[in-house]
Amino acid sequence: MDATEFRRRGKEMVDLIADYLENIEQRTVYPDVEPGYLRSLIPEEAPEEPDTYEDVVKDIERVIMPGVTHWHSPYFYAYFPTANSFPAMLADMLSGAIGCIGFSWAASPACTELETVMMDWLGKMLKLPEDFIAGTHGQGGGVIQGTASEATLVALLAARCRAVRMILASDPQRPETGITSKLVAYSSDQAHCSVERAGMIAGVRMKKIPTEQSDKYAVQGETLRRMIQEDKAAGLIPFYFCATLGTTPSCAFDHITELGPICNAEKIWMHIDAAYAGSSFICPEFRPLLNGIEFADSFNFNAHKWLLVNFDCSTMWVKKRSDLIGAFKMDPLYLKHDHQESGLITDYRHWQIPLGRRFRSLKMWFVFRMYGLKGLQDYIRKHVELAKEFESLVRADQRFEISADVVLGLVCFRLKGSNEVNETLLKRINNGRKIHLVPCLLSGQFVLRFALCARTTESRHIREAWQLITQLAEEVMQELPH
Amino acid sequence: MDATEFRRRGKEMVDLIADYLENIEQRTVYPDVEPGYLRSLIPEEAPEEPDTYEDVVKDIERVIMPGVTHWHSPYFYAYFPTANSFPAMLADMLSGAIGCIGFSWAASPACTELETVMMDWLGKMLKLPEDFIAGTHGQGGGVIQGTASEATLVALLAARCRAVRMILASDPQRPETGITSKLVAYSSDQAHCSVERAGMIAGVRMKKIPTEQSDKYAVQGETLRRMIQEDKAAGLIPFYFCATLGTTPSCAFDHITELGPICNAEKIWMHIDAAYAGSSFICPEFRPLLNGIEFADSFNFNAHKWLLVNFDCSTMWVKKRSDLIGAFKMDPLYLKHDHQESGLITDYRHWQIPLGRRFRSLKMWFVFRMYGLKGLQDYIRKHVELAKEFESLVRADQRFEISADVVLGLVCFRLKGSNEVNETLLKRINNGRKIHLVPCLLSGQFVLRFALCARTTESRHIREAWQLITQLAEEVMQELPH
Repeated sequence: MDATEFRRRGKEMVDLIADYLENIEQRTVYPDVEPGYLRSLIPEEAPEEPDTYEDVVKDIERVIMPGVTHWHSPYFYAYFPTANSFPAMLADMLSGAIGCIGFSWAASPACTELETVMMDWLGKMLKLPEDFIAGTHGQGGGVIQGTASEATLVALLAARCRAVRMILASDPQRPETGITSKLVAYSSDQAHCSVERAGMIAGVRMKKIPTEQSDKYAVQGETLRRMIQEDKAAGLIPFYFCATLGTTPSCAFDHITELGPICNAEKIWMHIDAAYAGSSFICPEFRPLLNGIEFADSFNFNAHKWLLVNFDCSTMWVKKRSDLIGAFKMDPLYLKHDHQESGLITDYRHWQIPLGRRFRSLKMWFVFRMYGLKGLQDYIRKHVELAKEFESLVRADQRFEISADVVLGLVCFRLKGSNEVNETLLKRINNGRKIHLVPCLLSGQFVLRFALCARTTESRHIREAWQLITQLAEEVMQELPH
Repeated sequence: MDATEFRRRGKEMVDLIADYLENIEQRTVYPDVEPGYLRSLIPEEAPEEPDTYEDVVKDIERVIMPGVTHWHSPYFYAYFPTANSFPAMLADMLSGAIGCIGFSWAASPACTELETVMMDWLGKMLKLPEDFIAGTHGQGGGVIQGTASEATLVALLAARCRAVRMILASDPQRPETGITSKLVAYSSDQAHCSVERAGMIAGVRMKKIPTEQSDKYAVQGETLRRMIQEDKAAGLIPFYFCATLGTTPSCAFDHITELGPICNAEKIWMHIDAAYAGSSFICPEFRPLLNGIEFADSFNFNAHKWLLVNFDCSTMWVKKRSDLIGAFKMDPLYLKHDHQESGLITDYRHWQIPLGRRFRSLKMWFVFRMYGLKGLQDYIRKHVELAKEFESLVRADQRFEISADVVLGLVCFRLKGSNEVNETLLKRINNGRKIHLVPCLLSGQFVLRFALCARTTESRHIREAWQLITQLAEEVMQELPH
């Protein structure tokens, strides 16, 4: 395919995409296929000679679409949102065409510099403390990671490195493996599974801090303080705490204004994972949820979840970039370049797990400019309002209960009664394939999560979903003994 | 921006991309900007109200392009290639629109299943041993990682987990940290810096195996065997060897037919990193370079380097998927789904560091079908021929020497003489900004790497590059004393 044919096929693809997104409501949100469905639909080997483009395009409907879970359907309420906006898609097309691999400043200066400035723009929208802004002389700054899992891991590795260095500074003879085996990290028992996984990868002990329903599933300062004291008494070295703002099960918020000072006093690295909730902090009314950020060493959220920047774009800031870089720096000759030691430039490969990286900041640039701060705020507020609307519907029905405070765009609810009845209800909902939800477990209770996800969800979809849920609940309650 | 406007803007973007790629030769391949150039060109904060799309597009030329290193210019010979093809870009557009996050089978069955089948297609093109093919009943199979760095790390973590499990099976009382502190991994001193970094991340000792110019910079079986014996005698536990096929400095190939049996006998996980060279193994004439693959536990190369599938698409295979999954598995309720325990399905989140993942296999599907195996082979062969052509030009000039065997699309060469003269020559070449190269260090010698990169490079570009290099060499040799 040459450029001339690409002009034609590209424009057809633009129409195909617009058609797909304009008519997505008419598709079954959750696919009705059995595992292994796809293999039999296509050949067992790649063709020797090229297929025609027409055949490839025909196969999108024949092979792919029947097995797609439509995350951007207004009937999709599962997991958390993943962003999808037209400006982001346009920017991503451009990014693909430029196709640079921005591992160092020299590998494509624009790729690095736009990222630093876009992270500053976003940091300012969030009213982050000045320490996190790169500016022209800052010691901190931002980086785009692929996912929150990577941000959590990168922060943990930087913390591990800093802890080992601090201990070696006062006790240079101590063997490094002896230190690592004593390190202990903490996170909430409500934290995302990727936090525990980061501990496994880094080979350090990770303890879960218990939370209570009565505390709204938030980690309390007193609990962390007690665990630290016990662990220190047992000869362990506390070094990392991952706080969560907006947990995956119920969108709970750890008390970072209490937790931060404890971490600072104990020289424990505090990382804040606000993967979902972070986007909302651009609205003044939600910004108080981030109070305490001044105590954190690093902060991350997924602009690719709820800020209209398509995956992947997990935005992370650190107060001291030297802490991050120090944990990873490697400089073989084939990656050296003239400006490297100037102090003015950033080589983002030292900030992340992979070496290569796409030109992802273009997506932020297009989205921020095409929506403006107000447009982004409107979008967040609309989702929160729809969640509140759904909450009212649930609260108005005596058979149901709300299982956790509705702070942003997630509603946790259940039928009053057994886990069994709720599991049956959820199964019935998903098997109906009209809407799609996933569950969570809160204090041993099986709970349904209703997460506002699609950009195009409106009040009528919420009401339709609720009507369906109540109708199925009625059926389930008639069938199952109470 | 709504779908109607996207139809218009998307088509404009398709033309912009086609224009960019059709006329890329006329741009300066390596940008002439100083660090910090971009910040002053754009506002310090995001706009409150939306900008117009016209303004955004105008800024592509004003702000971005001056700072882009044009990796797809036929005058770009630095690093290694990164793929860029029209079919891959079309597929990526579609992937962005579907915008699913395929962490589990249920999160979008098509995303998972197409990946498994595409990895089988590619595995068959490479004539991988049956063990690596998923099929319908295989124990192995493939996964798309973001980068080779991640593949190396994932393999290392799986190896660490397997080693600890094996030792605990025979000595259940032994503390796990005591095992980890004794583990030792190996790779060539020519291996990519990301291999050493993987060791740092996983917190295990990583030893570099010395190579010699006389052995063509390949790791020899005898050297590995000796190091293993010495380390075992010292109480260490060898557990992982990362072999490289096609090293970054000189495209050297470790002797895996010798190394593999040693690893197997010692129960050492052998991972093969063929990041660049791997794509060439689809040609029968280059496939012998992969002989010995049957001894490997895992194998990886970057289809996003040299197989026309745009970044990111780092293709990795394992013989036993349970080894990989075992190292990572976490199953919170919000990620559970009905078919999970059926054994028929794949949840790729257990195969990688991040949780989220794009629908990347669409790019493979489009590229394999639109090129056909023959088209892909033609493309590889053309690059190798052009490298050979450049090699002949160098060899015909008595002032120059070839520094390593030219096996694929990389030519390592230098002026006979001091490192200083070669450093000056390279600086002169890059400052000229007509072509772009990066150096490497081979046996203490400063060497210029000429890597065939762009899809559109032709013989005339090679000859033009050589003319420029010889002209600058003349200048340098006249200025510098011999």
